[in-house]
Amino acid sequence: MLTKLPFSDRGDVLVGQEMFRVLERAKFAEKQGVKIFHLELGNPRLPPPPEIFEVTKSAIDGKLLGYTSSAGLMELRTEIAKRYTNKNDRQISEENVVVGIANLLISQFMDLTCNRGDKIVLFSPVFPTYLVAGIHAGLEVVDIPLSVESGFDLTRNDVDRAIESKPRAIIINSANNPTGRVYSREILEYLAKLCHKNGIWLMSDETYGEISYRKPFYSLSALNYPQLIVISSFSKIFSIPGFRTGFALANEVVAKKLELSNSTLISCLPIFTQMGCAAGLRVLDGYMKEVKDHYYKTTSEITNIIKKSSVISFSEPDAAVYIFAEISKTGLDDVEFSDLLLTKANTAVTPGRSFGEKYKNFIRIAICGNIEDVVEGVNRVVTLAEDLSLAKPK
Amino acid sequence: MLTKLPFSDRGDVLVGQEMFRVLERAKFAEKQGVKIFHLELGNPRLPPPPEIFEVTKSAIDGKLLGYTSSAGLMELRTEIAKRYTNKNDRQISEENVVVGIANLLISQFMDLTCNRGDKIVLFSPVFPTYLVAGIHAGLEVVDIPLSVESGFDLTRNDVDRAIESKPRAIIINSANNPTGRVYSREILEYLAKLCHKNGIWLMSDETYGEISYRKPFYSLSALNYPQLIVISSFSKIFSIPGFRTGFALANEVVAKKLELSNSTLISCLPIFTQMGCAAGLRVLDGYMKEVKDHYYKTTSEITNIIKKSSVISFSEPDAAVYIFAEISKTGLDDVEFSDLLLTKANTAVTPGRSFGEKYKNFIRIAICGNIEDVVEGVNRVVTLAEDLSLAKPK
Repeated sequence: MLTKLPFSDRGDVLVGQEMFRVLERAKFAEKQGVKIFHLELGNPRLPPPPEIFEVTKSAIDGKLLGYTSSAGLMELRTEIAKRYTNKNDRQISEENVVVGIANLLISQFMDLTCNRGDKIVLFSPVFPTYLVAGIHAGLEVVDIPLSVESGFDLTRNDVDRAIESKPRAIIINSANNPTGRVYSREILEYLAKLCHKNGIWLMSDETYGEISYRKPFYSLSALNYPQLIVISSFSKIFSIPGFRTGFALANEVVAKKLELSNSTLISCLPIFTQMGCAAGLRVLDGYMKEVKDHYYKTTSEITNIIKKSSVISFSEPDAAVYIFAEISKTGLDDVEFSDLLLTKANTAVTPGRSFGEKYKNFIRIAICGNIEDVVEGVNRVVTLAEDLSLAKPK
Repeated sequence: MLTKLPFSDRGDVLVGQEMFRVLERAKFAEKQGVKIFHLELGNPRLPPPPEIFEVTKSAIDGKLLGYTSSAGLMELRTEIAKRYTNKNDRQISEENVVVGIANLLISQFMDLTCNRGDKIVLFSPVFPTYLVAGIHAGLEVVDIPLSVESGFDLTRNDVDRAIESKPRAIIINSANNPTGRVYSREILEYLAKLCHKNGIWLMSDETYGEISYRKPFYSLSALNYPQLIVISSFSKIFSIPGFRTGFALANEVVAKKLELSNSTLISCLPIFTQMGCAAGLRVLDGYMKEVKDHYYKTTSEITNIIKKSSVISFSEPDAAVYIFAEISKTGLDDVEFSDLLLTKANTAVTPGRSFGEKYKNFIRIAICGNIEDVVEGVNRVVTLAEDLSLAKPK
């Protein structure tokens, strides 16, 4: 009887994020005393800048436990505005910055720009939150699959197809989760200009941009279009996903809407975490050098392990923290492989279909955990794949 | 041109929360060096239990900075389940508990239960987030105004009218913001039973329940109906609104939906703040005695000041932390009075219309700030009201 409760249409279609379901299953196994190798979530474990801790804790001690502005703590907005003004050839002010929960900013973007039934273009493989948020909002998702052969790079043809589908909105994600691909300045500008020309809303999710270590990362915050919104997060760059703090850059009118959305949905975010993030930004440049260096080395080490296998294939990422690997030669699909890997080898990865229906031959490996565990986990992925390939009827 | 951006229907109607706009204006004045007396936000300033700080900070030191379950940290869910099992005559388990942002849980409730155009009943004066969230969700708000004469108590007649309007959902808020009224067990049970019988979703917002000091507070968590959701928050009881942590109690199916909604919208909340709240819950009973005592004394002191005035009237609240005061004898409406109070007397209050269109003769005074400031602020409210009354043409 309970399962027939009269939920709303939006409530009925909620699916949630698969990574978190894998995490639940892995944690359940851990409760039974099993050691699990976590390659499922982009849950980075590098030591954050100590300044973040010091400032966050002293803000707590200083009883900064009240409400603050729905647009974000001014001190943090100032730091973000400064950073993006310095990066770009244009002035970005506090009025262009709204602090928020990056994951929620995705739903807020859709909510502010799209009506039920409107088309939104996603290039797949795609970060699952865009999909689940799009389904939740009742949008028609237009999937433009990027080509495996190009290593999932974004081409003019992909962009043209996106525009031709006449969507209300497009989301682009460079550096990409799950492929690690960083798109060129040329193609991103091409996309942004066409969106502007055609009155299409564009969200550029740049959460992984700062940890691009192989290619120069181009941020669309360089461009000033009224319907362009850039979002990013402190989760990955500072290894503090638990702070749940990110931000959006947009023109004043859109930023004001986002502030109203924050005011309606969450009132505001904690002061102490925002102060911590502001402290982190003040030391970001030095810190990011170490982080990039770390991820460059880790990725080389991990990809070298996988390259030894003739069963698993992938293209070299440009940015941390994932490897999107093809596993069809194992004879299993993504879910079968992931389930077997968890039960037989105590290693958790995310099935490829979370990133789009077409990717049932893929798994996503997150390489940002404790390095020994990541190495051991990836060895287990490779071993299982090899075993399955040998056992497969020819 | 920018103001004509093609926002969605939901984006177009966003209004946000008036209290936060008042806060912005007050903060702007503070930036000019003016000392402001803050009576606009329920931003409690009592010292939280020290256990909350210790545990939160040591969780940060322990690098508990990753993701956790979308339903909330199990440790906190366990503490909440224990507490509500002890309070009630029935077993409440972790599967009935979802940790979230209380303000967001209001939108999530509407989102999961109501379609665009559906009716939702609100009893006014009403907490503004219900209104702004309802408008944002495109719901038809059925306003049932409670009678001033009864001190805004909830009557059988009010409940009957609510049910007769055949809504999809009803929100009830005891102890009430802004009136401080605590509704009786009898009337709340009557409401909940009728909702159950008629298949109406009911959200009981019990954020201020624990700080009811004049009347026993009855929590609808005592009842086990599939379409009944109880929400509450740690903001007011522990004076930590900046933690942005609250929770919902619901049957397993609804709780699962809320978890999916969290997963889609925010992924999860910080671990360290949830650990801090769990530590607080372990010492809640002793702590709440002090808090209730404090608010009882403060409210008496404040109401005694206001009672000296023949211009302002109000009914004695049952619970902290607001006084909803009638100001029509000043000759000004709520916005005129509030604006004048801010500019002439450097004191911020919330205009009554935030709590419903009918309350343009009211202001809400929050009495939970620093006690000296609250006393001074309320004296300024009274003085301005008296001055206006004397100056008024007879």
